[in-house]
Amino acid sequence: MADQYEVSKAGAAALGIPSLRWEELPEGPVVVLLDQTRLPAEEAELVCTDVPALVQAIRRLAVRGAPLLGIAGAYGVALAAARGFDVDEAAESLAHARPTAVNLGYGVRRAAAAYRAAAGRGAGAGAAAAALVEARALHAEDIEAGARMAEQGLALLGELLPGGGHRILTHCNSGALVSGGEGTAFAVVRAAHRAGELRRLWVDETRPLLQGARLTAYEAARAGMAYSVLADGAAGSLFAAGEVDAVLIGADRIAADGSVANKIGSYPLAVLARYHHVPFVVVAPTTTVDLETERGADIEVEQRPGSEVTELSLPPGQGSGAGPGAAIAVAPLGAQAYNPAFDVTPPELVTAIVTEAGVVSPVTRNGLARMCSTSRWSKSRSGNGMMAE
Amino acid sequence: MADQYEVSKAGAAALGIPSLRWEELPEGPVVVLLDQTRLPAEEAELVCTDVPALVQAIRRLAVRGAPLLGIAGAYGVALAAARGFDVDEAAESLAHARPTAVNLGYGVRRAAAAYRAAAGRGAGAGAAAAALVEARALHAEDIEAGARMAEQGLALLGELLPGGGHRILTHCNSGALVSGGEGTAFAVVRAAHRAGELRRLWVDETRPLLQGARLTAYEAARAGMAYSVLADGAAGSLFAAGEVDAVLIGADRIAADGSVANKIGSYPLAVLARYHHVPFVVVAPTTTVDLETERGADIEVEQRPGSEVTELSLPPGQGSGAGPGAAIAVAPLGAQAYNPAFDVTPPELVTAIVTEAGVVSPVTRNGLARMCSTSRWSKSRSGNGMMAE
Repeated sequence: MADQYEVSKAGAAALGIPSLRWEELPEGPVVVLLDQTRLPAEEAELVCTDVPALVQAIRRLAVRGAPLLGIAGAYGVALAAARGFDVDEAAESLAHARPTAVNLGYGVRRAAAAYRAAAGRGAGAGAAAAALVEARALHAEDIEAGARMAEQGLALLGELLPGGGHRILTHCNSGALVSGGEGTAFAVVRAAHRAGELRRLWVDETRPLLQGARLTAYEAARAGMAYSVLADGAAGSLFAAGEVDAVLIGADRIAADGSVANKIGSYPLAVLARYHHVPFVVVAPTTTVDLETERGADIEVEQRPGSEVTELSLPPGQGSGAGPGAAIAVAPLGAQAYNPAFDVTPPELVTAIVTEAGVVSPVTRNGLARMCSTSRWSKSRSGNGMMAE
Repeated sequence: MADQYEVSKAGAAALGIPSLRWEELPEGPVVVLLDQTRLPAEEAELVCTDVPALVQAIRRLAVRGAPLLGIAGAYGVALAAARGFDVDEAAESLAHARPTAVNLGYGVRRAAAAYRAAAGRGAGAGAAAAALVEARALHAEDIEAGARMAEQGLALLGELLPGGGHRILTHCNSGALVSGGEGTAFAVVRAAHRAGELRRLWVDETRPLLQGARLTAYEAARAGMAYSVLADGAAGSLFAAGEVDAVLIGADRIAADGSVANKIGSYPLAVLARYHHVPFVVVAPTTTVDLETERGADIEVEQRPGSEVTELSLPPGQGSGAGPGAAIAVAPLGAQAYNPAFDVTPPELVTAIVTEAGVVSPVTRNGLARMCSTSRWSKSRSGNGMMAE
């Protein structure tokens, strides 16, 4: 396993600053995050010295994206262990910081299990080291998984769109900002761009928090892609005009039946894609597949504060004399809002699910289970996991 | 014909301030607009003393909405005539201030034709009076049309949804702010609310300019409706959860084949409605039907500046020391944007078109033509125009 400074390189190259890193300071270890709420205006780092600070950062989306939440959860457990806090309590609070992305709990459980196993062997301080080793392993696996998803996704695009010159629509952010490496769906877009096969990336702005306009556009601009930002409602016109060759999105949780929870606004794209006979492809590591969640209806969808819709948050330093987090009311005072963070797309609308272990298409319960069995809980992603489906 | 202060009453009652009024000041007549860009934070009036000011107000959407644009265009011609400006030039510049809403050109042509006819009879100053009479007639007809659309739409809802307790989803703003009266689609919602049949109004925020969150929520709140604002992308989850009984929207232009141009984001709702077997109903006066536009593809769709998507505009007085119109960049500097103001929904996705002259369902070229022939260019809306279709 590479050490942490090495494993951050892929993300660092894509971003300038890695989305998350572990650092050993004289006063103790810390988890350093690129504060995603301040992008693209500012590349500011947020230093978490304890788990409550990290939980707070997760809740307010300073760190976000399913794979990165798993990595953050694992390092959070390592941080609590290294700093001598109660590891069980830390694990509990991290695992429940946000409900939908299954990776968060997965990362937390892996680091906590490593800690407990070492502690059970009487390892003492070695238990904290074991948690850190596990977090670093997860981090390294995530980078590797991103590279594999990019390969598999690029090959799939070649099959689905043999003409090349892809015009790809994406929603939310699924790049280096959601992972230790180059991400999920955006990693495939990046591979297509490198291969000279990306004609244009259509970037849904992704209301309410504008992760598309703020984060995906930031990554697309850094990568030198031809891209355009659009209001989410404008995607329909692109489909109608035949300007979309494929939709590529990430996922926060994939149920055993192949239902995909992803950022709110994904499901309408799936319906539009179906209506216009355009492939709708989901890219996520197998750690995002939750075989214990039977069906889409069983996925808990996080309801976020209505103020995310009824107010516009301003970047720090903007707004009339207000401090960071200032907001301007858009809707009338007292307006109610409906603000689920995610929606669920049923498997029948998903053309393919691309993971590091292979591609499932059509999306079936059995296909998904078989693919996961070849990779799940397997620390090595180097075997040949390509599924014949 | 009622005089102007009377004809403004319906709108005034709904809004507090009428969306548009003609006023005779000692220094000459003016057109006074409720500045819709400043709602809901401020109810500010904008006084236009000449046509360039009015054209500017139309372009920056201080006044907007198809029927109201027609009224504004007609009063604009009357203003030019009363102030002694070149009426042909004024009519030309008003008619082309925005390209999609057909009502704008219609209102301009009616007032200009009245002016020219009177001038041709050697009416002198009477020609300006004739233009004003025509503008006031259009204004009065619009109020009457709104009342008729509300009746017809309410009856249609009763047929489509016999269970009552409607949960209606709407997009953009189609209320008193778009008309002299209570509007188009929102007038139907208001009628349902008065009849005790509105369980909830789902208000799409309507990016990029947030006319739903800002304007429809303002009108819904004033009317005491149960309503919730949502990000446009969240509508899909409401459909999937069975929480939408019908979609009601207005229109900016309806082509002869029944294709409906309306605010960007309407077409995805039509596709979602079809996928979920939910009625998709368009409410607009016959003046919005343009029989000279053959098909949807012939409708010119206005492309608006990308900055509407890549920047957030702040209400006047907000933003760090910046004046009115200050904006905060959301996307990276230099980001391109795709920002059509409207999209076009084909007739096969429209359950019914409700006008003051009747209801067309299913939407066919012949049905639409027959309905328009009973009302088009007819100043009296009092006849029985209900279509058996």
